[in-house]
Amino acid sequence: MSLPFTILLLLIFSTSPSYFISLAHSKIARLGISPRTLKNAPDGSIQKVDESDLKIFYFNQTLDHFTFTPNSYMTFQQRYAIDSKYWAGAKANTPILAFLGEESSLDSDLSGISFLRDNGPRLKALLVYIEHRYYGKTMPFGSAEEALKNASTLGYLNAAQALADYAAILLHVKEKYSTKHSPIIVIGGSYGGMLAAWFRLKYPHIALGALASSAPLLYFEDTRPKFGYYYIVTKVFKETSERCYNTIRKSWKEIDRVAAKPNGLLILGKKFKTCAPLNTNSNIKDFLDSVYAEAVQYNRGPSYWVTSICNAINTNPPNRKIDIVDRIFAGVVALIGNRTCYDTNMFAQPTNNNIAWRWQSCSEIVMPVGYDKEDTMFPIEPFNMTSFINDCESYYGVPPRPHWITSYFGIQDVKLILRRFGSNIIFSNGLSDPYSVGGVLEDISDTVVAIKTNGSHCQDIGLKSKEDPEWLVMQREKEIKIIDSWISTYQKDLRDLNISI
Amino acid sequence: MSLPFTILLLLIFSTSPSYFISLAHSKIARLGISPRTLKNAPDGSIQKVDESDLKIFYFNQTLDHFTFTPNSYMTFQQRYAIDSKYWAGAKANTPILAFLGEESSLDSDLSGISFLRDNGPRLKALLVYIEHRYYGKTMPFGSAEEALKNASTLGYLNAAQALADYAAILLHVKEKYSTKHSPIIVIGGSYGGMLAAWFRLKYPHIALGALASSAPLLYFEDTRPKFGYYYIVTKVFKETSERCYNTIRKSWKEIDRVAAKPNGLLILGKKFKTCAPLNTNSNIKDFLDSVYAEAVQYNRGPSYWVTSICNAINTNPPNRKIDIVDRIFAGVVALIGNRTCYDTNMFAQPTNNNIAWRWQSCSEIVMPVGYDKEDTMFPIEPFNMTSFINDCESYYGVPPRPHWITSYFGIQDVKLILRRFGSNIIFSNGLSDPYSVGGVLEDISDTVVAIKTNGSHCQDIGLKSKEDPEWLVMQREKEIKIIDSWISTYQKDLRDLNISI
Repeated sequence: MSLPFTILLLLIFSTSPSYFISLAHSKIARLGISPRTLKNAPDGSIQKVDESDLKIFYFNQTLDHFTFTPNSYMTFQQRYAIDSKYWAGAKANTPILAFLGEESSLDSDLSGISFLRDNGPRLKALLVYIEHRYYGKTMPFGSAEEALKNASTLGYLNAAQALADYAAILLHVKEKYSTKHSPIIVIGGSYGGMLAAWFRLKYPHIALGALASSAPLLYFEDTRPKFGYYYIVTKVFKETSERCYNTIRKSWKEIDRVAAKPNGLLILGKKFKTCAPLNTNSNIKDFLDSVYAEAVQYNRGPSYWVTSICNAINTNPPNRKIDIVDRIFAGVVALIGNRTCYDTNMFAQPTNNNIAWRWQSCSEIVMPVGYDKEDTMFPIEPFNMTSFINDCESYYGVPPRPHWITSYFGIQDVKLILRRFGSNIIFSNGLSDPYSVGGVLEDISDTVVAIKTNGSHCQDIGLKSKEDPEWLVMQREKEIKIIDSWISTYQKDLRDLNISI
Repeated sequence: MSLPFTILLLLIFSTSPSYFISLAHSKIARLGISPRTLKNAPDGSIQKVDESDLKIFYFNQTLDHFTFTPNSYMTFQQRYAIDSKYWAGAKANTPILAFLGEESSLDSDLSGISFLRDNGPRLKALLVYIEHRYYGKTMPFGSAEEALKNASTLGYLNAAQALADYAAILLHVKEKYSTKHSPIIVIGGSYGGMLAAWFRLKYPHIALGALASSAPLLYFEDTRPKFGYYYIVTKVFKETSERCYNTIRKSWKEIDRVAAKPNGLLILGKKFKTCAPLNTNSNIKDFLDSVYAEAVQYNRGPSYWVTSICNAINTNPPNRKIDIVDRIFAGVVALIGNRTCYDTNMFAQPTNNNIAWRWQSCSEIVMPVGYDKEDTMFPIEPFNMTSFINDCESYYGVPPRPHWITSYFGIQDVKLILRRFGSNIIFSNGLSDPYSVGGVLEDISDTVVAIKTNGSHCQDIGLKSKEDPEWLVMQREKEIKIIDSWISTYQKDLRDLNISI
């Protein structure tokens, strides 16, 4: 799958406080773009999607489900899509597969997710895709400009409200299709994967089960090591090429050395063909951080981005001697392609989606990602919660609530808590995905299970390709078999309890 | 237990829209007082409570957990009490018993609930009692006057926010007592019983289990028959005395007949010794409705209120002929005691608690209680959702959200939903409690169980008495044994998972 999730987070977390503030003050969003714009460069052969059976709807959604003040009754139009081509109808009690949108537009999910339509015919399922509030065309307060203005309007953008939105729409869809007992399976990836798992846990009366793909829902507070993300990034580079890893590891000092020269930033800018002059060598270092993280997170066939980057970094061009910085730049070109110039801010464009996600990262989705240990290939820069809180507070006027996610959703002690509570969740993770560090990687009970592969971020729910490796084909098959077993058990329960449609 | 729950609801639901509106406009709260003020009359022998080991604390609570607008960061002081006399300390991982307050003050819970302190020594438990927001001394916005003013301030008073309050305080208590893995058992009665069950379902990572006493959490929307409450009230009267039941049944027409006479209301007022002149015969009828409902809901030994009322109604005084209305009045005196005059509004005093509860009943706790069938002893008056919504909306300016509770907590299909989801909940109900109609009365799974007795409302968690019937003693024993088994299993899990303290 191609979610902006990582990059957005990376850019929030990987730069120094002062840089953050200066950008904040200049009103430039620091959050990334969807990697799909990159992917189209190296990977040409993705499946084409037929959207002709989709119908788009808008639901009159409540702004604030959890208070009853006059303001909370404001509504907005929430976009969702339905594909009923495969559905066997209300009487058959066949399932509803519902994709719970994450921090991107419905359009990108419709073109990037194929798990639902791939399995629709087999399950005779109704397919539903819902856009997350404050993303795409689902904008409260009448316009993105108003909605994304400040904490007073952004304050209604959070996971609990989004889940309540999904509950309302799914109940509405059931009513619309006159089906009281069709089981609903929710599916989501990355942040959307957290939402899917949380939805099953908070709304078991609405969702029978959840497929949470690459959901780093344990990457909060101190549950997992803060350097875990970059540990995996490093590991994948090292496993791909020890030489490449060593070059990158050494490159940071070299960049500092060049930058420290007279006209050093000018030289550096020239070497990296930057579109704008550099203000600091951090511009390049943050950019490279994103390039490597992006490459690992979405590292997949047929082209395998990390391999492409490392091949470029390792290559000795004929008749020319190149230095470390040139090698690093060759890696950038291998990922992004040949361009007349390179925008070091390309991962932090102030798109609406990025502005919305920055708010989420600065309010409740506070994932402490840092570089604490020498054994990553990055310079040491531990995550500093105090600075983080201060930065967010000075930008938005309100501090983050870094304990809220663990208070409200809190399955940090997942083995202890879900061992005898809850059921029907698949946590799928690719161990080469840096976010797998925050994922549930062990089976918890008979029906709360972990599926691990060697893959990258959200591959299982993304687009199919003829070149998909066998393990991916088998992973998808395993997932749908598990889901099918939940549905069979549920239908047996309906019969046992004499519940008619 | 002695909660105002029923009576409050009764008075909200049992009167005609026009009456409601007129009262609303005159700013007189229509909600009841705690039956405990009554109980002290017939039942003198309740256990005395030693509160000397209790310490009172105030927690700096977030006003709005579910939005992040600047306003939501306002805080208020939430009152809670701790009794650590029995606790074995953090290292022992013995449990925390937490009473989740309902729509009354902490003081009344402390003096009316003894389940915690009765079982504290046996479990070596830390005892915690938390006051519900907007009740007692737990008042946002600085004062009751501000907090209870209108929908803008009352809007933060609802069950989801209250549960998030409890989560925050319980996590705080664990931190304060340096105990990460002491299991928490939440306990509540009536509306507080719903909160306890919902808390276990929404916060399984904080509460290991819940005892939900007399929680009518299925009495929403169309899940249970709307006349169910009054069906039980009728049944208990009929079973106590067929003659008494017949007298009450016939009395409504007789009251109408007297009221229709010239000076009829004056005559009626005189017969019932009302403190103020009657405006309508509904004043008397609503008052009687509350008397009968109250009597059944809290019908218990040693005096058994329904028996007292029926004995009085059935008695033929020597040398005097009395008519139906006189007999009915004799029943009132039997419950309330001899007074110089009777305030027909006594169940609807505009106390702060009643004002707060009226808001909850008019926003989300919309329980459709009506008299639809001839087989209650009351005049037919079906619950009318449209009128109800209109009345609440014209009073508060915002309409109720009658579907919210079922959307958010929705275990209406409880057998289907909780059969394979969730664990460790006891639903206890007395079948003579009119609210048992909305309770879970069947075992759902091995650990989601129902305990039924012949008792009345919340008897199990209330004060012990030497005269308690054997079934009540056994019920309490059964409950604590079940809770004990949850704790043992949990402690075994801790060991199996090698989780240290």
